[in-house]
Amino acid sequence: MPDIKVTYFNGRGLGELIRYLLKYGDIDFEDIRIEMDNWPALKASTPFGQLPLYEENGKVASQSLAIARYIAKKVNLAGDDEWQNLEIDALADTLTDFRLKLYPFYHESDPEKKEALKQTLLSETVPYYFERFEKNITKNNGYLAANKLTWVDFFFATSLDSLTRILGVNVGEKYEGSSKLKKKLRNYLQLRHG
Amino acid sequence: MPDIKVTYFNGRGLGELIRYLLKYGDIDFEDIRIEMDNWPALKASTPFGQLPLYEENGKVASQSLAIARYIAKKVNLAGDDEWQNLEIDALADTLTDFRLKLYPFYHESDPEKKEALKQTLLSETVPYYFERFEKNITKNNGYLAANKLTWVDFFFATSLDSLTRILGVNVGEKYEGSSKLKKKLRNYLQLRHG
Repeated sequence: MPDIKVTYFNGRGLGELIRYLLKYGDIDFEDIRIEMDNWPALKASTPFGQLPLYEENGKVASQSLAIARYIAKKVNLAGDDEWQNLEIDALADTLTDFRLKLYPFYHESDPEKKEALKQTLLSETVPYYFERFEKNITKNNGYLAANKLTWVDFFFATSLDSLTRILGVNVGEKYEGSSKLKKKLRNYLQLRHG
Repeated sequence: MPDIKVTYFNGRGLGELIRYLLKYGDIDFEDIRIEMDNWPALKASTPFGQLPLYEENGKVASQSLAIARYIAKKVNLAGDDEWQNLEIDALADTLTDFRLKLYPFYHESDPEKKEALKQTLLSETVPYYFERFEKNITKNNGYLAANKLTWVDFFFATSLDSLTRILGVNVGEKYEGSSKLKKKLRNYLQLRHG
């Protein structure tokens, strides 16, 4: 068994996806959680000043989606061929685009401007993306891509969690395919690790 | 030979990387370039309202880096093992993070604010990233990752071009490893396709 360490803040965020994938594959790892007080000292030693970090037998890598793709191959959550991997990767980068659209709202401190940004997210951005995610889920046997469970479904589930926390509204609930997919993942993780 | 089409705006941007990789591999493709007047009509038919699109034997995919990673495997510009692919993917996502830091400057219309953002980019953001890219290039035999030429080097070269166009300054010039790597790629493409 390789010696695996995952370093992230003491929260879910972008680290949760990596923890989920390792747990899914029953891969033991050291779950290192950094308190904000200790972050400045660690930051200078990271490749580009960011967490999560993934360490395997002493080698270190950064970037959550790159790490997730790597682990997915170990735990049989990648595509069956390269075209499926392309579909999975495209959905993952689309989810990142969507997450980035939440940042102006997340960082806005003026309450009026914040509320206006929230309304645009709820009435335009969320429907735009989720209507398209629903189409993918319908076409792919209940999953986002490749007709089967893959790592991008886990990224979707963790992104839905972040979205609910950030907006204070469970926006995925209204979308049948998204909602079912998220439940399926929760049950699956609970069955294996609950 | 598969029937391959690449659809992008009539410019370099995120489409250029895909065109480069296909040319590197001597893969014929239809280079479809959309004028802005025709974009609204096409936009609604794309998976998530974005270009580039990559079409192979009638199947369509979006997201430039997902497409680049897929083509890289065909043209021998991927890593030799999965850890190398992780390193390559992490660098690609780091380059995207860096590109995103240019957006507030790019979209700012107030000249004074724009100049202030430019100074921060030149004095802080660019040195932060490029000092780290230089370390990678020194460690990896003149390339960004995997000790050899890979698709992330092409993404680096096209990103340097974008950076120079956006900032109006050839910022890579000052950095020896980056500058050499870029020249190497140019020569290589010219040798094969010039």
